[in-house]
Amino acid sequence: MPNKNQITERFKHIQDTICNGLEQLDGLAKFHEDKWNREDGGGGITRILQEGNLIEKGGVNFSAVHGTLPDVIKNAFVVNETNFFATGVSIVLHPHSPLVPIIHMNIRYFELSKQTWWFGGGIDLTPHYVNERKAKEFHVDLKTICDRHHQDFYSKHKAWADDYFFIKHRNETRGIGGVFFDRLNEQNTPLNKEQLFNYVCDLGENFVDIYAKQTEFRNQPFSEEQKMWQHLRRGRYVEFNLIYDKGTKFGLDTSGRIESILMSLPKDASWHYNYQPQPNTEEAKTLSLLKKGVGWVF
Amino acid sequence: MPNKNQITERFKHIQDTICNGLEQLDGLAKFHEDKWNREDGGGGITRILQEGNLIEKGGVNFSAVHGTLPDVIKNAFVVNETNFFATGVSIVLHPHSPLVPIIHMNIRYFELSKQTWWFGGGIDLTPHYVNERKAKEFHVDLKTICDRHHQDFYSKHKAWADDYFFIKHRNETRGIGGVFFDRLNEQNTPLNKEQLFNYVCDLGENFVDIYAKQTEFRNQPFSEEQKMWQHLRRGRYVEFNLIYDKGTKFGLDTSGRIESILMSLPKDASWHYNYQPQPNTEEAKTLSLLKKGVGWVF
Repeated sequence: MPNKNQITERFKHIQDTICNGLEQLDGLAKFHEDKWNREDGGGGITRILQEGNLIEKGGVNFSAVHGTLPDVIKNAFVVNETNFFATGVSIVLHPHSPLVPIIHMNIRYFELSKQTWWFGGGIDLTPHYVNERKAKEFHVDLKTICDRHHQDFYSKHKAWADDYFFIKHRNETRGIGGVFFDRLNEQNTPLNKEQLFNYVCDLGENFVDIYAKQTEFRNQPFSEEQKMWQHLRRGRYVEFNLIYDKGTKFGLDTSGRIESILMSLPKDASWHYNYQPQPNTEEAKTLSLLKKGVGWVF
Repeated sequence: MPNKNQITERFKHIQDTICNGLEQLDGLAKFHEDKWNREDGGGGITRILQEGNLIEKGGVNFSAVHGTLPDVIKNAFVVNETNFFATGVSIVLHPHSPLVPIIHMNIRYFELSKQTWWFGGGIDLTPHYVNERKAKEFHVDLKTICDRHHQDFYSKHKAWADDYFFIKHRNETRGIGGVFFDRLNEQNTPLNKEQLFNYVCDLGENFVDIYAKQTEFRNQPFSEEQKMWQHLRRGRYVEFNLIYDKGTKFGLDTSGRIESILMSLPKDASWHYNYQPQPNTEEAKTLSLLKKGVGWVF
């Protein structure tokens, strides 16, 4: 069974693979790297891509941190252990074009003791404009990966993503979802540790290919109005990340490196008071599809 | 002693006074008004000013809501009462010019029973560029008002503002502070209900005059770089409001009208990865002054 060092090394390697793939996909920008240490134990490698051909601002974060579990997290996790180890890879990419979606991926491993550990993660897509053909393609790609590991994973983890990536105060999903899961272990899944590890690595190793297909419209022209709409949608992304996202909260609660945690925020975002798209527009159609339970693959 | 209806009416009147004053100060924009009802009891009047001469986006919100106290708030307040009544006026103004500060004001009255009630509120200033002469002037203005009600109020409520308007994860204050207070009543202050009511009304009624003085540089030219810095500082404002602000949290927890709660967010905000101003610039000087405990009036 993989131990925490092996998981850490493989995650680090996945960060490398993804960064190489994204530089090729972008064609212009190179990642800027910051290595950092966490005062209470561990550290990470933050890689940032800014002002590329495709990507306006994005980050691929690796971290492996350990130490004493803050009380606020102990209570949230409902565990008794005092020490923790956590490693993971986190990605958020904000493209220049409003016709290309925002994407997020995270894979993580958490260990409180030799017996108490779990995997978590997910990939979700936030199109500024929902294109139903592309949304279906994205979900089919995820289902293909999930099906290699367990026949129930796609349906379960797709529903989990609908619930998780939900902006409650707006009554809308962040985007078209994807897959999300947390605290997967040998007790609550039919898979063993190695099999679960393979599942999260499979997601990580296919991330660039999945996103590449979603950048189909990267060279299409777009209007000022579409750019404005993109900034408004990014405003919603900011709301989700600062109010609801557990990874952000975990980072803030464990005094993580703030610029690495908040690399998920877009370069520019906007809020207009009570903005409502006109009926029968692409913007209105997008809003109407930002809801739970859409069966994209069927 | 003032009862909740009298307090509500006076607060509503303060909203009118402020809106009239701000329209005059702006010289161009007129408030757009939305009246709204809260499903579980009460409602409000939201007034929004957009694309004025001075103000890019701002709101003056009045609300008077009542109903059953959600458990999450009951626990936060450490009270046993089940019903609540709350009325208040909230303001956030984002000016066009980076040389004019953002301002926030709130006055509120909260009642759980005839015996259990309190006043809260405050005014704080967030200059994109801290000008020490103007900062002193702002604090002297607040001290002058506070001193009319109790000799300790300015020093206590200034320190309270330093603690409250603090962006912990950035280790910086939101701006140059001002005054902040919560749960003031006859038990924890030497003032009676009427005197406390007069204090919060005095703040509300002097708000426009205080802000007008802070718009001294409204007609000065500014550069693209200063506009970019303004957007970065607005990003911090968004972080504070979505992560820490208790009024925002209270609104979300009580299912308030979301567009009224989030009217505090700026039209445009930005995040650049790990942005650091050059040494010996106005931007660096501003950052160095965003800390607790600056004795602005002395």
